[in-house]
Amino acid sequence: MEFFNQYAFIGCEASFEDSNIVLFGAPYDGTSSFRPGSRFASSRIRIDSYGLETYSPYLDLDLEDYLVHDAGDLNLAFGNRELALKSIRGYCDEIIKKNKKPLMIGGEHLVTLPAVEATYEKYKDIVVLHFDAHTDLRKDYMGERYSHATVIKNIWDFLGDGRIYQFGIRSGLKEEFEWAAEGHTFLNKFGYESLDKALLEIKDKPVYLTIDLDVLDPSIFPGTGTPEPGGLTFKDMMIIIQKLSGLNIVGADVVELSPDYDPTGVSTAVASKIIREVMLLL
Amino acid sequence: MEFFNQYAFIGCEASFEDSNIVLFGAPYDGTSSFRPGSRFASSRIRIDSYGLETYSPYLDLDLEDYLVHDAGDLNLAFGNRELALKSIRGYCDEIIKKNKKPLMIGGEHLVTLPAVEATYEKYKDIVVLHFDAHTDLRKDYMGERYSHATVIKNIWDFLGDGRIYQFGIRSGLKEEFEWAAEGHTFLNKFGYESLDKALLEIKDKPVYLTIDLDVLDPSIFPGTGTPEPGGLTFKDMMIIIQKLSGLNIVGADVVELSPDYDPTGVSTAVASKIIREVMLLL
Amino acid sequence: MEFFNQYAFIGCEASFEDSNIVLFGAPYDGTSSFRPGSRFASSRIRIDSYGLETYSPYLDLDLEDYLVHDAGDLNLAFGNRELALKSIRGYCDEIIKKNKKPLMIGGEHLVTLPAVEATYEKYKDIVVLHFDAHTDLRKDYMGERYSHATVIKNIWDFLGDGRIYQFGIRSGLKEEFEWAAEGHTFLNKFGYESLDKALLEIKDKPVYLTIDLDVLDPSIFPGTGTPEPGGLTFKDMMIIIQKLSGLNIVGADVVELSPDYDPTGVSTAVASKIIREVMLLL
Amino acid sequence: MEFFNQYAFIGCEASFEDSNIVLFGAPYDGTSSFRPGSRFASSRIRIDSYGLETYSPYLDLDLEDYLVHDAGDLNLAFGNRELALKSIRGYCDEIIKKNKKPLMIGGEHLVTLPAVEATYEKYKDIVVLHFDAHTDLRKDYMGERYSHATVIKNIWDFLGDGRIYQFGIRSGLKEEFEWAAEGHTFLNKFGYESLDKALLEIKDKPVYLTIDLDVLDPSIFPGTGTPEPGGLTFKDMMIIIQKLSGLNIVGADVVELSPDYDPTGVSTAVASKIIREVMLLL
Amino acid sequence: MEFFNQYAFIGCEASFEDSNIVLFGAPYDGTSSFRPGSRFASSRIRIDSYGLETYSPYLDLDLEDYLVHDAGDLNLAFGNRELALKSIRGYCDEIIKKNKKPLMIGGEHLVTLPAVEATYEKYKDIVVLHFDAHTDLRKDYMGERYSHATVIKNIWDFLGDGRIYQFGIRSGLKEEFEWAAEGHTFLNKFGYESLDKALLEIKDKPVYLTIDLDVLDPSIFPGTGTPEPGGLTFKDMMIIIQKLSGLNIVGADVVELSPDYDPTGVSTAVASKIIREVMLLL
Amino acid sequence: MEFFNQYAFIGCEASFEDSNIVLFGAPYDGTSSFRPGSRFASSRIRIDSYGLETYSPYLDLDLEDYLVHDAGDLNLAFGNRELALKSIRGYCDEIIKKNKKPLMIGGEHLVTLPAVEATYEKYKDIVVLHFDAHTDLRKDYMGERYSHATVIKNIWDFLGDGRIYQFGIRSGLKEEFEWAAEGHTFLNKFGYESLDKALLEIKDKPVYLTIDLDVLDPSIFPGTGTPEPGGLTFKDMMIIIQKLSGLNIVGADVVELSPDYDPTGVSTAVASKIIREVMLLL
Repeated sequence: MEFFNQYAFIGCEASFEDSNIVLFGAPYDGTSSFRPGSRFASSRIRIDSYGLETYSPYLDLDLEDYLVHDAGDLNLAFGNRELALKSIRGYCDEIIKKNKKPLMIGGEHLVTLPAVEATYEKYKDIVVLHFDAHTDLRKDYMGERYSHATVIKNIWDFLGDGRIYQFGIRSGLKEEFEWAAEGHTFLNKFGYESLDKALLEIKDKPVYLTIDLDVLDPSIFPGTGTPEPGGLTFKDMMIIIQKLSGLNIVGADVVELSPDYDPTGVSTAVASKIIREVMLLL
Repeated sequence: MEFFNQYAFIGCEASFEDSNIVLFGAPYDGTSSFRPGSRFASSRIRIDSYGLETYSPYLDLDLEDYLVHDAGDLNLAFGNRELALKSIRGYCDEIIKKNKKPLMIGGEHLVTLPAVEATYEKYKDIVVLHFDAHTDLRKDYMGERYSHATVIKNIWDFLGDGRIYQFGIRSGLKEEFEWAAEGHTFLNKFGYESLDKALLEIKDKPVYLTIDLDVLDPSIFPGTGTPEPGGLTFKDMMIIIQKLSGLNIVGADVVELSPDYDPTGVSTAVASKIIREVMLLL
Repeated sequence: MEFFNQYAFIGCEASFEDSNIVLFGAPYDGTSSFRPGSRFASSRIRIDSYGLETYSPYLDLDLEDYLVHDAGDLNLAFGNRELALKSIRGYCDEIIKKNKKPLMIGGEHLVTLPAVEATYEKYKDIVVLHFDAHTDLRKDYMGERYSHATVIKNIWDFLGDGRIYQFGIRSGLKEEFEWAAEGHTFLNKFGYESLDKALLEIKDKPVYLTIDLDVLDPSIFPGTGTPEPGGLTFKDMMIIIQKLSGLNIVGADVVELSPDYDPTGVSTAVASKIIREVMLLL
Repeated sequence: MEFFNQYAFIGCEASFEDSNIVLFGAPYDGTSSFRPGSRFASSRIRIDSYGLETYSPYLDLDLEDYLVHDAGDLNLAFGNRELALKSIRGYCDEIIKKNKKPLMIGGEHLVTLPAVEATYEKYKDIVVLHFDAHTDLRKDYMGERYSHATVIKNIWDFLGDGRIYQFGIRSGLKEEFEWAAEGHTFLNKFGYESLDKALLEIKDKPVYLTIDLDVLDPSIFPGTGTPEPGGLTFKDMMIIIQKLSGLNIVGADVVELSPDYDPTGVSTAVASKIIREVMLLL
Repeated sequence: MEFFNQYAFIGCEASFEDSNIVLFGAPYDGTSSFRPGSRFASSRIRIDSYGLETYSPYLDLDLEDYLVHDAGDLNLAFGNRELALKSIRGYCDEIIKKNKKPLMIGGEHLVTLPAVEATYEKYKDIVVLHFDAHTDLRKDYMGERYSHATVIKNIWDFLGDGRIYQFGIRSGLKEEFEWAAEGHTFLNKFGYESLDKALLEIKDKPVYLTIDLDVLDPSIFPGTGTPEPGGLTFKDMMIIIQKLSGLNIVGADVVELSPDYDPTGVSTAVASKIIREVMLLL
Repeated sequence: MEFFNQYAFIGCEASFEDSNIVLFGAPYDGTSSFRPGSRFASSRIRIDSYGLETYSPYLDLDLEDYLVHDAGDLNLAFGNRELALKSIRGYCDEIIKKNKKPLMIGGEHLVTLPAVEATYEKYKDIVVLHFDAHTDLRKDYMGERYSHATVIKNIWDFLGDGRIYQFGIRSGLKEEFEWAAEGHTFLNKFGYESLDKALLEIKDKPVYLTIDLDVLDPSIFPGTGTPEPGGLTFKDMMIIIQKLSGLNIVGADVVELSPDYDPTGVSTAVASKIIREVMLLL
């Protein structure tokens, strides 16, 4: 009797022990200020991943040739930010300790903070590659120091200058753009023209890759909390993926899919395909 | 590390061997004539079942006190009706052979045919309790003998007169109503006024229960292929469930949720709750 | 070669000459103050009517036993109210002159005005049976004398006192309710408790029947311009239809379906079924 | 030049000083466990309130005869539950101190806690009338003491036994039903059969009224976080409103509309009408 | 107590007197021939504008450095085109008389006619920059001289040859394209290749800018009455905005958002951002 | 009396006898493996075609100058693949026998098989131009030899090597890409860079053109069964159409619109426009 197993991301059926990469969901969206719902991203992505093939014609690689474990979703309390961040940190520590690479599906962007912290614990010289529509460099947001709008600033607080590379940025306070321009981060406004230069600088370092999917244009990715027109096309993203393929990426996340805001299901299909490609990069 | 397991219907985590009831999905909708999409029912129901409690205040029973196995979905080819029916038949045979009870999530109503056949194999005196908006008594539909619009007639072909009880029926050809009225089936037009009388007749027999969810009024259940206004309320359905609680039900199915047609998600919530109640009946 | 003809309402394939009843669409929604879109009602209803059977178990009658012509939709200019009303008037005159009965699909409620005028031209003693959530008795609305909110008052202007019977009414200005209560119209607040009394009074008169579908509860009919909770169920409406079956109805309309506001399609299914029943009444 | 003012709830244009009732929004949904989005309720309700009349045929009262101030929405941080609750508490204190009555639009149900606390500060003998599908009596939820699923228990913690009346309840843990049945609250399972009895008991006491809109059946109110079929109809709710009309209600809230989950807009229309009626009760 | 004020477009909180620019809504869609609903544009745009920053990285300008008054929406009767046009004309006159610049949010494109008339009254040498998918050059449409499909022709009637520049045009009658090509207007088929040339010609003249948002490709702007694939990307539009930055724009409008047709909300976000940029241009 | 005839595609009102081109629908989606619903494509396209002009500015041609017959939709049984394919074959034979050209609206891609077979019967040297996101070259799919995922392989089975040209392909099994690369088909990965070369090769041959609309990027065409990001823009498609204009196209189809998955209606508008252009090519 043949059953249809749709409970793990397609092609991710290795056990935790056997795997080199551990995929997991962090369905927390507690600080979303505009449209919440990224908590539903990981469960939708798993189901829709069965509309994908395991083979990527972009990278000419096949998921079936790799060992990935899909651990399911962390059980996070929505009303308690500190506890949620702590749970994510704990699981990332566990993955990294066993010399595996974490690949996290958000949730909102704040979930990146504990994941980078955990990675930094092991790789002190880590750099962060950040794709996003928003600067995320506020010192506080509505009075809160830890939020989806401050997360990159929170990471800078322990990484310091010159360690964060930002692409696709097209929305933020004037102060944020100015602060970045003072050399605190390497910020590419609108597109990714300076990506090649950045890759040269970081090619020998451990890299954490964080993709806020709203870096994509809302024409192809409407299902997100704060859609910002003027973003990257999917083809841009595939070119970027191909450029990243020689890097030493030690951890990654893909965040801010809010699937209920896109009744066509295209946003979930896009997110699934990007996760497949990032998995093949790792 | 605590994970959120949403890959089985809530409270259905027993193994096949330990279980008394086996839940499985039959995601086939190949003969749907109006709006397809019941193939997506089972995967949505599992996720949304986590919005339910395991405790039913209607029956004052708790799923956690029972052993149910959720086997996942059968892998069915959409373009090949015969093969799909054969797969369902095979799995029902396996369940019944081991003295367990099948609880199938459709799919369209045609999936009921192999399930009743398998049950009939063991229980020759079985009767069928049928809740539906439609008669489903056509001899053929668009030239086809086996279809969602002929399924009860297909079952009558081997059960014969007086073994099928139909409730909530409010749409069909004039000929179908007349044929039923000749005594071939026990057909209750619109509601369930004669349910008590029927229950008296069948109280000592093995019963197969088939619920086509379009028996419900589309106000509470819009997400179905052919919505028929004028149906039962959810409260009616809970009264019916309570009335059925003494019966010897040996198999059951809940069919015709087409979740994409209801963006509010209410139809899926309704289906999930009815499945919980049917499970507790079994 | 068999083709699927979905270009006329199901079972309405008689020619204009042969027919007793002429169905046509009046897709005008130019004075809708809240949510427009009733212009799309008739084309959707025709397509969805093929999800219906021609047989009504409520009236035990079959559309196939009657001669109905579906004339399609009048071509109405949205920005020119006077011209639109004139076109409707002209076509109703043509139907009535040939001793046929008009059955019009709105559009907004203002389209009823020229249809009643045309009917009144022939039947001076006509009475109007009006099912609606709203009084529609304003003298003017946003400065306009002719609008969906004034239409029954516009009809009263030539029919006078005691000729209009209103049911299901649950929204209006205090003044409108008071004006009706002075005996100008026969207004049944909320439900249809006094329908039997009204039917006694009008049983020998020619009747024009106008059903604003928002008389239904939005649970079963959300696809309308101004949804008003607290309305009739579909079963109420079927009971009403059965009660009307002895009347001498000489013209009718069914208005205010705005199909794009109900992505489930249920509102269109409801409208189609009510049109089938009204057709069988005629 | 005439402008259309849609920035306050219809008929609520009194200043804070002149008013007897103060309407405000508390757009917090930070602990929602299933579908978030009640943060958008108040802004949608204000716009859609212009589809209402100010006159209620149910109570035969007109909003234009009362002085209500619409203060807009509190500015609440989503990631910081404590701060959000404190802001609500502060504003309720301010309203009550000036001898006005607060009418709060949620947000999720947890916002009721600070509002009842503020009211209790002034009226030590206050009783709480609670309409809801859910018990909300958990001691903790996912490890959190303060959440939408614990809020009535949190209120009981300072009010004690015999002060809380619950109606429409149809979902919860077995333990919650049992705990209520021990006499801690007055819990009416499913409907409101014992409302008359309760009203007799509380007719001389100050009352806080909290309506979780999911007490309504999802057929009429699908736009909520956790839809529970089997609820009250809108007509039931209007009967209840009429029954409450002699009470001394000193504060009230209407919570858990999540408008984006109902693309038909009916849920927002229902919420608006219930708020109009509650306002007229106050 | 901090409140969230969402009742004016973000950053537009100056009084009428203090302001240099007056933003207002003209929610009229009475002649829309395909999908109506642009009447809802302005109220949605105001709410969603709070998802924007006031700072534009495209123009490196911040709304907070300017004085803009948001006057709300004109109160327009849907069924009376003449009255609606007259109201718009009246308010534009008032704005222009006080040496302020009008920025109007449609509504359908016909609302541009009275705004250009009012501007022309003061600036006899005005030229019109027109971005649109449609020619809008018909002499009449469905028998009507004044409609969204004739509006640019109506403007030509008093401006004459060589004063209208059209970009992005990709749909119309063959006759319209031919008429434009005779030199009556300056029509750029499909894109904006000849914009630079046009800007040279008009750089010393007063300019009225009218943006029919359907000039954008429906991939990024599906929420409009008549979506025409093959349009501009959002990036194209930002390039255009930057090119326009030296012009003497004396009035502007942004029309034809029909928000209910885009459940993802992206169209409203796009419209809001374009309005921010146009405001900064003014 | 003027009526609005929306029952044939705009401008396709010639009789079968008079016409050179016959448009018809093949609403079969029985083997769709992911999201069904392409059965509804043809009826939606006809209605929405009235939002189009008959004039194409891309080809500078007008539909009104050609004789096209719209035959309506074939009546196909969903559960019986063989019968459906046979009906399509039969009708294509009839069209071709009378020296007319078939233009078929799918339905899923499998409907192309009988249409190519019928064309091949007359034109033995026919070549197939195939635009699609998917290879469709599987030998079998879920055990079935005939399916939407095998259709091009099924056609290769009788045409053989070098007769099939594929463009826009970006998803498939590794084996499929490899098999094509062995020279069995001419496969252009991702885009249409080699189209010019192909056109040179086939310029003297009869051509069958099959457009699976999912070749378009889901940003502009979300309404399809299996959306694949990274596809062609609408402008790409118009360039392609212009390039094809000298070919001897003897038959064509446009398949895989699933309109219910795109509530904005843009996908249907796109499909309608592409059908207009293909019609003008024929």
